[in-house]
Amino acid sequence: MPAVSDRVVTQEASSISGMNKGLGLLERAAAPEEIARLGWNLLREDLSLPSAVLYAEKMRHNLDWMQRFITAYGVKLAPHGKTTMAPRLFQMQIDTGAWGITLATAQQTWAAATHGIRRVLMANELVGRENMSLIARLLEDPGFEFYCLVDSAELVRQLGAFFRARGQRLRVLLELGVAGGRAGVRDDAQMRAVLEALEEWKDSVALCGVELYEGVLSQESEIRAFLRRAVEVTRRLTAEKRFERTPAILSGAGSAWYDVVAEEFTGARLGEAVEIVLRPGCYLTHDVGSYREAQARILASNPIARQMSEGLVPALHIWAYVLSLPEAGKAILGMGKRDAAFDSGLPVPVLTYRPGDAGPQEAPAHWTVTKMMDQHAYLQIAEGDALRVGDMIGFDIAHPCLTFDKWRVLPIVDADYNVIDAVDTYF
Amino acid sequence: MPAVSDRVVTQEASSISGMNKGLGLLERAAAPEEIARLGWNLLREDLSLPSAVLYAEKMRHNLDWMQRFITAYGVKLAPHGKTTMAPRLFQMQIDTGAWGITLATAQQTWAAATHGIRRVLMANELVGRENMSLIARLLEDPGFEFYCLVDSAELVRQLGAFFRARGQRLRVLLELGVAGGRAGVRDDAQMRAVLEALEEWKDSVALCGVELYEGVLSQESEIRAFLRRAVEVTRRLTAEKRFERTPAILSGAGSAWYDVVAEEFTGARLGEAVEIVLRPGCYLTHDVGSYREAQARILASNPIARQMSEGLVPALHIWAYVLSLPEAGKAILGMGKRDAAFDSGLPVPVLTYRPGDAGPQEAPAHWTVTKMMDQHAYLQIAEGDALRVGDMIGFDIAHPCLTFDKWRVLPIVDADYNVIDAVDTYF
Repeated sequence: MPAVSDRVVTQEASSISGMNKGLGLLERAAAPEEIARLGWNLLREDLSLPSAVLYAEKMRHNLDWMQRFITAYGVKLAPHGKTTMAPRLFQMQIDTGAWGITLATAQQTWAAATHGIRRVLMANELVGRENMSLIARLLEDPGFEFYCLVDSAELVRQLGAFFRARGQRLRVLLELGVAGGRAGVRDDAQMRAVLEALEEWKDSVALCGVELYEGVLSQESEIRAFLRRAVEVTRRLTAEKRFERTPAILSGAGSAWYDVVAEEFTGARLGEAVEIVLRPGCYLTHDVGSYREAQARILASNPIARQMSEGLVPALHIWAYVLSLPEAGKAILGMGKRDAAFDSGLPVPVLTYRPGDAGPQEAPAHWTVTKMMDQHAYLQIAEGDALRVGDMIGFDIAHPCLTFDKWRVLPIVDADYNVIDAVDTYF
Repeated sequence: MPAVSDRVVTQEASSISGMNKGLGLLERAAAPEEIARLGWNLLREDLSLPSAVLYAEKMRHNLDWMQRFITAYGVKLAPHGKTTMAPRLFQMQIDTGAWGITLATAQQTWAAATHGIRRVLMANELVGRENMSLIARLLEDPGFEFYCLVDSAELVRQLGAFFRARGQRLRVLLELGVAGGRAGVRDDAQMRAVLEALEEWKDSVALCGVELYEGVLSQESEIRAFLRRAVEVTRRLTAEKRFERTPAILSGAGSAWYDVVAEEFTGARLGEAVEIVLRPGCYLTHDVGSYREAQARILASNPIARQMSEGLVPALHIWAYVLSLPEAGKAILGMGKRDAAFDSGLPVPVLTYRPGDAGPQEAPAHWTVTKMMDQHAYLQIAEGDALRVGDMIGFDIAHPCLTFDKWRVLPIVDADYNVIDAVDTYF
């Protein structure tokens, strides 16, 4: 059978509809390359705001920063693609040296594979007939490498039955978990049950490594203990010859604790028998919420990060218009819960621009978003601030994942706010 | 110039990509009619979960209920389309008797017009060059009827300059607001400034009515006072012959207070000179959050609603798999903040189904979603509950607007869970 990517991507590849928000007027769908040639400029008001704008140079900086960090530790990077779900950004990550792309669901994997991603770590349990069907279809292409997680004997049985019936073999990692956390085996008894089921379904489910997500914990000491447990399990299962892959995979790390995971996993000196794969996803655009806090800790405490130049920088802004200044001290913005994450801090105004002016100014530090509705935000300003209906404001955001998923296309701009590319998303 | 709908819709109409979540495996894009012919059934696991599923009969009930309510009051319905942003649902609303569709942005208007919607009330200020360009392009079609809001002299000036330069005339409504609220003129001085600007730009900006959004208030007495102010302003401006449309439009009503708006506006007996337009949007799928509460109040207190049969019913479920049962009393679900609204109540489990069983069962009342992450939910259950990895759970949701915008396509099922149609969205 031809690979899915051969069959589908040619038909559907990155055809950006003119009905998307955040672009200029397009009377018909256009490829990103066509959009890049239209000569749009954010400051010339060529975009219909609100728009989620990516800064090319800042993304480049972040891509390079993380890859240098990963390389310094001698580990592998499989950035979590659920953050952006933008295959064109996945390709930039692969081109910068990523080992593969991490994803969370069968549909995300399908969308990535359709766009040519060849190695996916699905850091989640694969459950349900049609989800398994999507993966089985992708596995018909022998060049497509795929891993997902198991944490129960029941799931191993369901996967085993499904893939055995198709004469296929699914590669899995054993997920470890902690009490009070998300999925993952909590203790040795649960682990033994999963290992027994794996033994039974060996022909169709191949254990290839160990996985955890430390981000369900918040204390560094707990996280280090959890990581050491994963190292210990990996050692034990290696000794027991449980893994069907050499090297076995040991994978952890969200966007907040990747430094600690790198330290612990490399510090364990597992050698050639184990390949360490880290999965931060938010570094590409960064944020000014919890990931900025995490980055401050990393820059202060991690010996490798300390030696590197400037850390990660925010590379995504939501730009919106002032719609109304209805009372003293308040502006109403054309940006809402449909446009930016609001679950771990509201957007932060950083730039302000009046069309026709030479360039944006820094937004006053006292401007604060106090409320968001579906399509509007309330901005608290001071009486007498020079703000007018039609002024544009650029906002930093907190939580890239829940910002990206509100946009089907994001323009990429250069330092002069020219639109030089656009990426489409597949949420 | 040809209408945008003639030029665009034929090319792009409702081609549903196989890369969307919540569908079955599609190797290439398909029209909704093709999807309806695939014979998919939710309970046979033909869909990749999570999926947002619309129930055809329940939507039909809600469509009819609201239209009967509106007709009983002798007013007009312009359902807020921002809720679903699904032009196929807009068309159902129009076919059931809606006067037009309400929208919140120029891009939403563009998407609706492209799909053949001919009358749009944009219940928002139109700000920014490219947003104005989108509307100007649509107005080249004389059959497209469009209204948006103004609440400042500055905005009237900007709109006037833009549309005068194009030899076009934009129809606007005066937005009234309240202290502490969103946009809208607060007092007579602000209103006079807007009216003066309207006088100056009369050739390119035509005042056609008065608008408010009472949902920024929460007390019925305040809401009634605000509505009476709108009636009084409408009377005054009619007497002053300020309106360029006969009848003038008087519009209010979100999904929580439409009964009170209908009562106050019709009770004012404004006669033939005024057309009353209400804008609830959430009635189509309803919810089990704030709109269920609002509906309970309406059914208890509104004389027309009291006479009608069963009120609005929830017509949208998120279906998700149990991925893991990692510890006593906890299930991990494959549904997260990317799949359902979480800002005004978490999803509520209502149905549970084990593939192969005859049909879904009611979910036990003690099951509760306690936490949502990007792609997962934690479900609190009781020890010993008969739940297994691979079981499907159907969830009611709170806040349809922030649920719809997480889906690019939603299957519509009949009472036997057969997929009989699908609607695509344009967020």
